[in-house]
Amino acid sequence: MPIQTLSVVLAAGASSRMKSPTSKLLHSVLGRSLIHLALDQASAITNSVIFVVGHQREAVEAAVEKLAAPSLKIQFALQEKLIGTADAVKAALKALEGVDDQADIFIMGADSGLLLRESLIQFKKNHEASGAVLSVMTTVASHPNSYGRILRNSQGAMEAIIEAKDATDAELAISEVNTGFYLVKLFALKEALSKISNQNRSKEFYLTDMVSYARQRGWLIYSQQIALEEAAGVNTQADLVAFGEILQNRINHKWMKEGVRFLDPRSTFIDFDVKIQAGVVLESGVHLRGETSLGENVHVSAYSILSNVDVGTNTRIESFSHLKDCRIGKDSSVGPFARIRGNAVLENDVHVGNFVEIKKSHLHSGTKSGHLAYLGDAEIGRNSNIGAGTITCNYDGFKKSQTTIGENVFIGSNSSLVAPVKIGDNAIVGAGSVITKDVEAESLAVERSDQREIKEGAKKFRSRRENSNKK
Amino acid sequence: MPIQTLSVVLAAGASSRMKSPTSKLLHSVLGRSLIHLALDQASAITNSVIFVVGHQREAVEAAVEKLAAPSLKIQFALQEKLIGTADAVKAALKALEGVDDQADIFIMGADSGLLLRESLIQFKKNHEASGAVLSVMTTVASHPNSYGRILRNSQGAMEAIIEAKDATDAELAISEVNTGFYLVKLFALKEALSKISNQNRSKEFYLTDMVSYARQRGWLIYSQQIALEEAAGVNTQADLVAFGEILQNRINHKWMKEGVRFLDPRSTFIDFDVKIQAGVVLESGVHLRGETSLGENVHVSAYSILSNVDVGTNTRIESFSHLKDCRIGKDSSVGPFARIRGNAVLENDVHVGNFVEIKKSHLHSGTKSGHLAYLGDAEIGRNSNIGAGTITCNYDGFKKSQTTIGENVFIGSNSSLVAPVKIGDNAIVGAGSVITKDVEAESLAVERSDQREIKEGAKKFRSRRENSNKK
Amino acid sequence: MPIQTLSVVLAAGASSRMKSPTSKLLHSVLGRSLIHLALDQASAITNSVIFVVGHQREAVEAAVEKLAAPSLKIQFALQEKLIGTADAVKAALKALEGVDDQADIFIMGADSGLLLRESLIQFKKNHEASGAVLSVMTTVASHPNSYGRILRNSQGAMEAIIEAKDATDAELAISEVNTGFYLVKLFALKEALSKISNQNRSKEFYLTDMVSYARQRGWLIYSQQIALEEAAGVNTQADLVAFGEILQNRINHKWMKEGVRFLDPRSTFIDFDVKIQAGVVLESGVHLRGETSLGENVHVSAYSILSNVDVGTNTRIESFSHLKDCRIGKDSSVGPFARIRGNAVLENDVHVGNFVEIKKSHLHSGTKSGHLAYLGDAEIGRNSNIGAGTITCNYDGFKKSQTTIGENVFIGSNSSLVAPVKIGDNAIVGAGSVITKDVEAESLAVERSDQREIKEGAKKFRSRRENSNKK
Repeated sequence: MPIQTLSVVLAAGASSRMKSPTSKLLHSVLGRSLIHLALDQASAITNSVIFVVGHQREAVEAAVEKLAAPSLKIQFALQEKLIGTADAVKAALKALEGVDDQADIFIMGADSGLLLRESLIQFKKNHEASGAVLSVMTTVASHPNSYGRILRNSQGAMEAIIEAKDATDAELAISEVNTGFYLVKLFALKEALSKISNQNRSKEFYLTDMVSYARQRGWLIYSQQIALEEAAGVNTQADLVAFGEILQNRINHKWMKEGVRFLDPRSTFIDFDVKIQAGVVLESGVHLRGETSLGENVHVSAYSILSNVDVGTNTRIESFSHLKDCRIGKDSSVGPFARIRGNAVLENDVHVGNFVEIKKSHLHSGTKSGHLAYLGDAEIGRNSNIGAGTITCNYDGFKKSQTTIGENVFIGSNSSLVAPVKIGDNAIVGAGSVITKDVEAESLAVERSDQREIKEGAKKFRSRRENSNKK
Repeated sequence: MPIQTLSVVLAAGASSRMKSPTSKLLHSVLGRSLIHLALDQASAITNSVIFVVGHQREAVEAAVEKLAAPSLKIQFALQEKLIGTADAVKAALKALEGVDDQADIFIMGADSGLLLRESLIQFKKNHEASGAVLSVMTTVASHPNSYGRILRNSQGAMEAIIEAKDATDAELAISEVNTGFYLVKLFALKEALSKISNQNRSKEFYLTDMVSYARQRGWLIYSQQIALEEAAGVNTQADLVAFGEILQNRINHKWMKEGVRFLDPRSTFIDFDVKIQAGVVLESGVHLRGETSLGENVHVSAYSILSNVDVGTNTRIESFSHLKDCRIGKDSSVGPFARIRGNAVLENDVHVGNFVEIKKSHLHSGTKSGHLAYLGDAEIGRNSNIGAGTITCNYDGFKKSQTTIGENVFIGSNSSLVAPVKIGDNAIVGAGSVITKDVEAESLAVERSDQREIKEGAKKFRSRRENSNKK
Repeated sequence: MPIQTLSVVLAAGASSRMKSPTSKLLHSVLGRSLIHLALDQASAITNSVIFVVGHQREAVEAAVEKLAAPSLKIQFALQEKLIGTADAVKAALKALEGVDDQADIFIMGADSGLLLRESLIQFKKNHEASGAVLSVMTTVASHPNSYGRILRNSQGAMEAIIEAKDATDAELAISEVNTGFYLVKLFALKEALSKISNQNRSKEFYLTDMVSYARQRGWLIYSQQIALEEAAGVNTQADLVAFGEILQNRINHKWMKEGVRFLDPRSTFIDFDVKIQAGVVLESGVHLRGETSLGENVHVSAYSILSNVDVGTNTRIESFSHLKDCRIGKDSSVGPFARIRGNAVLENDVHVGNFVEIKKSHLHSGTKSGHLAYLGDAEIGRNSNIGAGTITCNYDGFKKSQTTIGENVFIGSNSSLVAPVKIGDNAIVGAGSVITKDVEAESLAVERSDQREIKEGAKKFRSRRENSNKK
């Protein structure tokens, strides 16, 4: 029978150095909040997670409840006062009542979501295989700053973790440091927590004192080194930036390995849940957000931003396109300077050009709208051509109405289509027309006066203007 | 009585390696020219600054005069020929006539504006406390290149500064280098300058020879190490880039500490005089220029550029917004692809959307202009709705005229408002109208012909076109 | 008589780790494909180059044939199976038949295009001067990974190159590594290739075994160290990114030395064939592509993309401009948010503003189109003013037609010019007009109905709407 494991996530901290009205745990990088990343991790080796909450507890609990899979058992424990990490874990003990004393408890900080899943699984495997009572993940830092230092005896066995504030100069020179990830047998955790004091410079109860207690009791301690970036936590805005860069780097390298061509990964931002097929090219400054999905050989040009956009194979997104909540078929071209939103659907072989906004509209295959248009609440049939400057007047100040355009329709430039209105298949609308009544299929509709020309009229206007300027 | 201090700023150099028609001192980074930064520094510990000028002296002097606070005493001294830094300081001696011989002279290069104010104040304090005649700021460089090397005796006392060109290989291996910042008693400066020769490889009079002379005279020399980046100077375009990066990094970290969320500080450029409240989010590629000011919780999306823009709390600036010399109230939303300029004012709860240009106009609270519009020289009352494609025809080829729109007005799409023209409160303008005459309050105004429909007209047009193509 | 030199470029590899449908050699960075860079290099010291091809041979051969100068003798040799670099060179021997045995053969990988021309010329000079039979370029890598390690004897003479897969731990610790660039006498190459075996861990025929064979035969081996970045090759998408960054850095520093001001070289991408005059300023995020050329003092603002654009002196390109295949004169201003394409020509002192698209049009000097316009297939005379929202209706669904506008014309806002149509010199078109017939010089043309005003009409409309909403 496998050993039972439960996770305790320390999520009570105040993160005052962030100077943010929002808890640091609710800040996001590339589509994932810190608490979301922690939840993913904590649940990688268990289906029972206890969050120790405190600062902004309602917001943190609400976020966890929204994110957690139904199969996961989530409990919250309140740390009343922020008097140290040992005290935080103590707050979780009540939620651990009834659990087998031989169970393993995985403890982590809620702002440490960069631990790799494979490192964690290996950690658990080694912890079990070694028979350790307590296992500690450490890392090596060239600038260990405020990290707790790992003290080892001459045989290399871990003796203690000393917090930077309490360390001597010799201890501060140690580069192996604590990461805040532990696996510990429940019985040992309980016993250690009951003994840890706050006799230190910060007057806090340190969870790190578990180590010296375990050594004193003669318990076997296992330790495993992970890469420094896996141990990154977030206490300041600068930390959050560094955290995001690590994640960005990981995501981008993952896609490079899958055959995605990046022109400048440093300026390319891809959210967690994005999906990209091989042969895709991403120019510099591209943002792919939310649940965006790019088909094979899609080309996204510099400075385009796609949020929740589904793009079909071979489609080109030109520069400065701002696309949100929409679907674009294959073999299409969009932009530059296109804005598409509001669940718009573009079928295959569609062209949407510059300074065109499309909102909540459906453009069937082969349709083109190349220049300076606003298409809102419109259904447009196959192979229709929407002239430059066309506007669907979908709003009358009270409600939105629908514009329906058939197949193979030609809408002349600068036309206004006053919705609700229908233009039949194969119809033509003359340039500059305001169309307020439905147009039959095959008809030519036009709203226009006669062109009048006043001979010398411009000349006279100018001399009038020039004279009036003289006065 | 405090010791009198005066500053001498060496601003005569030719900066030929910049290959720029403009003096390097007039190049700017993040809203500050090099000479401006130098002026700020030189005046941090004195209110009397002498600029030694030469190359492009008129332009440099004009810049200094424009920038200097009235309380500051500014003098210029001309270095006739560029024959060395000692000669440059010599040129300043005339301006120092009548000054107490015990006064301290702070000497710096005009291209070295990255010295931190606190380092300089500490330097002066230590110089005074030590009783030194000469004090030198040094730094440690892993690639010391052309910096002068600091020679010390076996007790660690500074013996001399040797210019890289005159250094032996052993001396070139020294990593402690000169920064060009000195504090020196006036009597000692005068005496040293009268003795310094140009017997060296460059045939130049080196100010650095002050050190060996002081040693020879047995004067006490104090030295203080600063960080390498504080000593950065500018001789090439690449130096100027590096200089700018240091400044960018400092400014961005300052705002992070104040609680500003950066998604990508590397691509975020914030000028010196910008002000940002806590809770602000800056996405990647944002530029904040001039005297821009952002209220609490303002969100600026990727690739927006704001110059001298005042933005109220909770307002969102969407991507690709290009805003200059304007004020935007609170709870508003702007962009994407908005352009606002020419002292435009947007009050609270205003929405300006994509492909909209606003110039020298006043939009009162609750007003919306969502799509493809040009609003110039317009006054628009509260809660009015400006339809897509609306254009204020504010120019007739001779002069600009005003468009005045009341409250709660609805301007139909694709309308042209030929200024000067007034639209009264609660009026409606029909889509596609050209409005040349004033519209009364509560009126519905429309300029439009009857819509004509030629049955089968499109069919006939097509067959004519197809036939003509066959010919 | 100079020694004859021929180049052999190894271009057969499969580059499967790229996971790209296209051969890695056809991928481009900053306007140059890898095979193009290799061709430039291989031909720097010879006019006879043999490409050993295999994977995607047709595509690679086609690219080489298209790129090679007519004066260059190009041959292709097929490597049937990818069984090692020695086998690859063997495939080239047939193409070397009849060549003097004393000729020098320069061998390089086709993905190694970063070797500096001056390093190569020096290499050849030293190879000849030393009388070496075989010369090898090496480099020093702090993370040598899979590079072949250079084994030297106690006198420092090169003994062998050992591939990483076959190296002992001690050998793996060596930081001097092989670059894949060799010069070798043809007789020695032939002899060595006939002896090299595949008795190694990969069961491949290694060209690197040439070195130990040369040593065994007592042939003189010369070696030259180059910088690590000159030896960069491409096997993965991440390699290609790193390769591109090196090139970007080189190109940008070249232009800095020429007096170009960069605000952020990291985000500035300049293709190989671009030409820039001194005094040019490039803000962050600028892309200069193809054969773009910028005159003196041109200013390109942030996030503008220019492809094959010729810009005259003192012209300003404002942000978010997307310019392709066009020419812009001097003293002009373009953007922000301008799109110009299709061989458009703007003469001097032209202004094109925001949300304006210009396609295949000619704007003569002094002409202005400031806002929200589409000008396609148009000829526009000097000093004309194109109002906001103007659209040339150049397409009727069948063919494109021409719009011809004279000098000093004023086109009122929101006008539609239905091509083919001509507007004479000094004419004025009233705002909102649809112009379908030619307009004479000096005429005032207008197409417009009377403005009607329904008193209280808006009030009634609102109450109807409000009532209908209640129902």
